[in-house]
Amino acid sequence: MNPYTVSRPVCIIGLGLIGGSLLRDLTAREHAVFGYNHSTSGARRAAKQGFDVTNDLPGVLARAEKKGALIVLAVPFEAVASVLDAIVEHAPTCGITDVVSVKTQVYDLVKERGLESRYVGGHPMAGTSQSGWDNSQRGLFAGAAWAVTYDYALEVEKLPQSWIDLFADVVRLAAMAKAEAMPVRVAPHDEAVARVSHLPHVIAESLAVVGDHGGILSQSLAAGSFKDATRVAGTRPELVQQMCETNSAAVVKALDEFLNYVTAARDALASDNPTIADLAEAGYAARTRLEARTGARKESVSPVKISSRPVLRLSPGSHGWVSQLRQAESMGGRIEVF
Amino acid sequence: MNPYTVSRPVCIIGLGLIGGSLLRDLTAREHAVFGYNHSTSGARRAAKQGFDVTNDLPGVLARAEKKGALIVLAVPFEAVASVLDAIVEHAPTCGITDVVSVKTQVYDLVKERGLESRYVGGHPMAGTSQSGWDNSQRGLFAGAAWAVTYDYALEVEKLPQSWIDLFADVVRLAAMAKAEAMPVRVAPHDEAVARVSHLPHVIAESLAVVGDHGGILSQSLAAGSFKDATRVAGTRPELVQQMCETNSAAVVKALDEFLNYVTAARDALASDNPTIADLAEAGYAARTRLEARTGARKESVSPVKISSRPVLRLSPGSHGWVSQLRQAESMGGRIEVF
Repeated sequence: MNPYTVSRPVCIIGLGLIGGSLLRDLTAREHAVFGYNHSTSGARRAAKQGFDVTNDLPGVLARAEKKGALIVLAVPFEAVASVLDAIVEHAPTCGITDVVSVKTQVYDLVKERGLESRYVGGHPMAGTSQSGWDNSQRGLFAGAAWAVTYDYALEVEKLPQSWIDLFADVVRLAAMAKAEAMPVRVAPHDEAVARVSHLPHVIAESLAVVGDHGGILSQSLAAGSFKDATRVAGTRPELVQQMCETNSAAVVKALDEFLNYVTAARDALASDNPTIADLAEAGYAARTRLEARTGARKESVSPVKISSRPVLRLSPGSHGWVSQLRQAESMGGRIEVF
Repeated sequence: MNPYTVSRPVCIIGLGLIGGSLLRDLTAREHAVFGYNHSTSGARRAAKQGFDVTNDLPGVLARAEKKGALIVLAVPFEAVASVLDAIVEHAPTCGITDVVSVKTQVYDLVKERGLESRYVGGHPMAGTSQSGWDNSQRGLFAGAAWAVTYDYALEVEKLPQSWIDLFADVVRLAAMAKAEAMPVRVAPHDEAVARVSHLPHVIAESLAVVGDHGGILSQSLAAGSFKDATRVAGTRPELVQQMCETNSAAVVKALDEFLNYVTAARDALASDNPTIADLAEAGYAARTRLEARTGARKESVSPVKISSRPVLRLSPGSHGWVSQLRQAESMGGRIEVF
């Protein structure tokens, strides 16, 4: 078996920015891949462009079942439950992964249906503020982190071989999209993305509103710092709602921490001796650490992009491999399977 | 007289990122320009590269006086007072402008010394998170807004011709750097930059710290939204302090407005029915307005960059020209002088 490619066909449910881009990547690599789009017109446009796409959900799932395909849920969170129900009915043995930006709530829906032995969660940390099939593109995931969850491996005494094979295939799916598979349990995942993805969205929205209140003069004076800081406020509101509302507990925790720092800075600036020294130094140190971590990649003279994430190579199912996943998670590392 | 070039030599005091880049631009255009740098080694490096640079402040000011040069203050705020004192002593008749990021406090120092008839404030809205002569570069100001203050024109009955000429030359200075001169009074300027420049710095610092607290897993999962949102946290802490602390009243006002929105979002997310709909919609609308405003420039197929800022052409000193400045300010417009 080719250790670099997914061992089965791939069936993608939902062809928006993420699902559509994945379909393009796998098609370009000539991997067996077919998909479903809810919108008739979207499905027709994709089919006209030569992609193997339908808008018949029961049909596409029956085909996935027949081919033993890996099903990728790439629908908005609010559609996950109904698609899982359809999978129970039409594709009763297929392995399942997803690309939804929160993992705890998806895993809850999976467990409610007793599907956990057939499920490995995923979340590619890539995107643009644009959405939909028409904005999907090849190479969207190149170099991005692709979280792969493995809670099930800690929940059962003896892992079924089918789950181990599924896990390996999800890691390979990320690799085929040129992303970097990072093992992470659902709760730490949701806490981390609350900090580094959902919180930045809430901040960008708030800053955009305050800048807008400054009127046309403020907007006209706005330079790179404002434009960069508000870029993700261009994300469709319903997508922001989905991310933040399905991960509200972790987002509130991150917001409270953030509010603490901003409020302290506000009070220090409002004092008789206005100062922002503490925050300016702490923020500079934090940003410098981030740059140092990713610096190796940027400064490399190699024509091949070198990842700054440490890599662990492991053989799923071998002795101690789940401990290796824990280790990789604790160091923010990526994995490769063999 | 050439309406596109400054009518006198230019003397730049301080050759960091801003002053150094301006020196490079004017030198490249073969305009008579010379400069002073506080650091001996910096001045020596610039001189070795063929620039007309010294580290003798009294000497350079005496030369400016002899040549009738326009003096550009490009030093950190904390050095402005002492350089103004040196100007009083060594260059008693030269016109003065500056590139400091706050305008009210600089104008106060100017007025304390009775220099207001010789002063027109400036602030180019350009920069990088890098600083110093070695990071200065040609073209840094291309397309950027360059605020030009005109409070003095509203403060006196009859404007001296020398001030009118100085104002015109500061507008031309911005144009020679390919920037867009925007007339604005010092107080509205400071309020606007508190919103669109200083507030984003405070936010970026706070977000960088919260992201850093998430540890290596969060950092490794961080994608574009986090990196863009924390970019300006890489600014040297003393520069952030200078900006925010010299404009603290306006920054606190902007922070209070921002905190209001973030706190409301936090409370709505912490409720029994977590929602972020209101903020997500308001933020999206605000960002979309910003994009619409600057969109014309981006989508242009012309090889010449077309500014999205409305332009007013005016003749300084002519009937009603100060009203035209007010009008340009109220619509965030740029001006050209003839």
